[in-house]
Amino acid sequence: MKILTLSQLHELIEKEIVDQKKTLEPRELYEPIWYTLENGGKRLRPILVLMGCQLFNENIELALKPALGIEMFHNFTLLHDDIMDKAFLRRNQPTVHIKWDVNRAILSGDALAIQSNVYISSTTKEVLPKVLSVFNKTALEVCEGQQYDLNFEMVDEVGEDEYLKMISLKTAVLLAGSLKIGALIGGASDQDAEKLYSFGYDMGMAFQLQDDYLDSFGDPKVFGKKIGGDILANKKTLLLIKAKQLADEGELKKLNKWFSSKKGNPAKKIKEVIGIFIKLEIDKYIRGLVHSYSKLALASLGELDIEDNLKEELTQFTNSLINRVS
Amino acid sequence: MKILTLSQLHELIEKEIVDQKKTLEPRELYEPIWYTLENGGKRLRPILVLMGCQLFNENIELALKPALGIEMFHNFTLLHDDIMDKAFLRRNQPTVHIKWDVNRAILSGDALAIQSNVYISSTTKEVLPKVLSVFNKTALEVCEGQQYDLNFEMVDEVGEDEYLKMISLKTAVLLAGSLKIGALIGGASDQDAEKLYSFGYDMGMAFQLQDDYLDSFGDPKVFGKKIGGDILANKKTLLLIKAKQLADEGELKKLNKWFSSKKGNPAKKIKEVIGIFIKLEIDKYIRGLVHSYSKLALASLGELDIEDNLKEELTQFTNSLINRVS
Repeated sequence: MKILTLSQLHELIEKEIVDQKKTLEPRELYEPIWYTLENGGKRLRPILVLMGCQLFNENIELALKPALGIEMFHNFTLLHDDIMDKAFLRRNQPTVHIKWDVNRAILSGDALAIQSNVYISSTTKEVLPKVLSVFNKTALEVCEGQQYDLNFEMVDEVGEDEYLKMISLKTAVLLAGSLKIGALIGGASDQDAEKLYSFGYDMGMAFQLQDDYLDSFGDPKVFGKKIGGDILANKKTLLLIKAKQLADEGELKKLNKWFSSKKGNPAKKIKEVIGIFIKLEIDKYIRGLVHSYSKLALASLGELDIEDNLKEELTQFTNSLINRVS
Repeated sequence: MKILTLSQLHELIEKEIVDQKKTLEPRELYEPIWYTLENGGKRLRPILVLMGCQLFNENIELALKPALGIEMFHNFTLLHDDIMDKAFLRRNQPTVHIKWDVNRAILSGDALAIQSNVYISSTTKEVLPKVLSVFNKTALEVCEGQQYDLNFEMVDEVGEDEYLKMISLKTAVLLAGSLKIGALIGGASDQDAEKLYSFGYDMGMAFQLQDDYLDSFGDPKVFGKKIGGDILANKKTLLLIKAKQLADEGELKKLNKWFSSKKGNPAKKIKEVIGIFIKLEIDKYIRGLVHSYSKLALASLGELDIEDNLKEELTQFTNSLINRVS
């Protein structure tokens, strides 16, 4: 069975985005859609759709349009999240609501979501109901995750479990759903599709926690973003939640002071907060969690009824995600 | 064949909304959805789904969830349009972005759109691809219509054809699509479904133009809204577009003055503008268009291969829409 590598899959996605680009009217509606889609990114979710498919079917062409649909859905959520989060930049480019305005960001996001439905529905009559059922459930969960994330800004304290639930909804379920949708399109049994979902879910948790880890402990030379973005934004990540649990009175006072406002010297804030994190061994704690989740992911993979060389590809992929530096 | 009346269909929809209501978490996300759905309205679109179905199938239960899905989609567009239009009230209640905030209005709107997909997909494997194809195409067109409407605010002049295109996208296609989706679910042939679409499209044009007409020429005692809302909002409706075409120099000057700002005495503005409309016989012109479109609609209905008593129901419905006073 011919297996495409990660970079070959990535290339397929990029080519499909170029091929699908159309100049439609009114351009005010469609311009921001392609601006967003062509702005790069890891293309992680559509790659997972293709990977899920090629585990069960040589013809990954079957999954190409649905894969693009998943990437469209992901970009739609980013587009709207950026309005809600008042974000100015996305992948080093001005966000849509900054480059144009909030109305165009709302409306072109809506149109992008509808386009994503069109592409995800591009599958056979046989699997369509199952694919849509996974997709719609996942899409709703992603909205729930974003709402919990918004809620966290309004409260003083967030629990570890609450945080893990939020990232599971906001991130993990879409990685899991992408694999499951690909598998269903490829002809997987319900059981195998479900195991792949479990694999993707735990891998997604590891992925997001590694993201949080890198924000404080990434190498500035290779990370691609500035270190400490979450700290400056006073985000209640698991790093902060855990640090507050473990801090002594003095450390807690310092953390509460820094996270009570967005004022103060940014460089000093980042340095002092990360200093506390290191002293409390938060870096080790988070990396430990990343490893635990990736172990869970690989255990689900082990139960999957596919050839070992196919599993090898997903194992490598998982390892590359949890050891990534950017 | 048992045919349910308009009010029986309306009742079915209202009951289904009550039946489907769930208290889900996070409540910040789901509360605005049910606030919006329970806020009444004509329920025109879901009724059209049921009507489309019952022309071809006695079992309209088949179409009940998709009908609710269409109503959800419509309410999603209203929810987001109200943010874009900075509207304070919808059906005499505070809009979602006013009652809560813009972020909750964006996100709960997104979730409502996804919910609408769930309900619209609640149909058999056999018709699902066709239903989704009609729905997604229509949904995208509704976004295009809203974008043209937003564009009109930025330009000095809008042509009659441009205006008709905008309302066709923003309103007519969803009424048409609702009937077509219902018909497909009921088992109609592609040809009959298409004729019903044509009927719905022209009826939708008549419906929207009657809406515009009532804003200036409705009876304040029964209209339900204040007369002149479009005039005070400087909306470039067909009434204004046509009046500018027909106006003499003096009238054109007055119209341009009134529509160049939102200042000035509101009552005086409404009185003077409607005075010009009447002098130029804009009321007759718009009512003429309403009749032309309803004739076109009834002609499509005539071509439909169904029993005459079923056509009678739709004819009455069309007449009630174009002669409505509120």
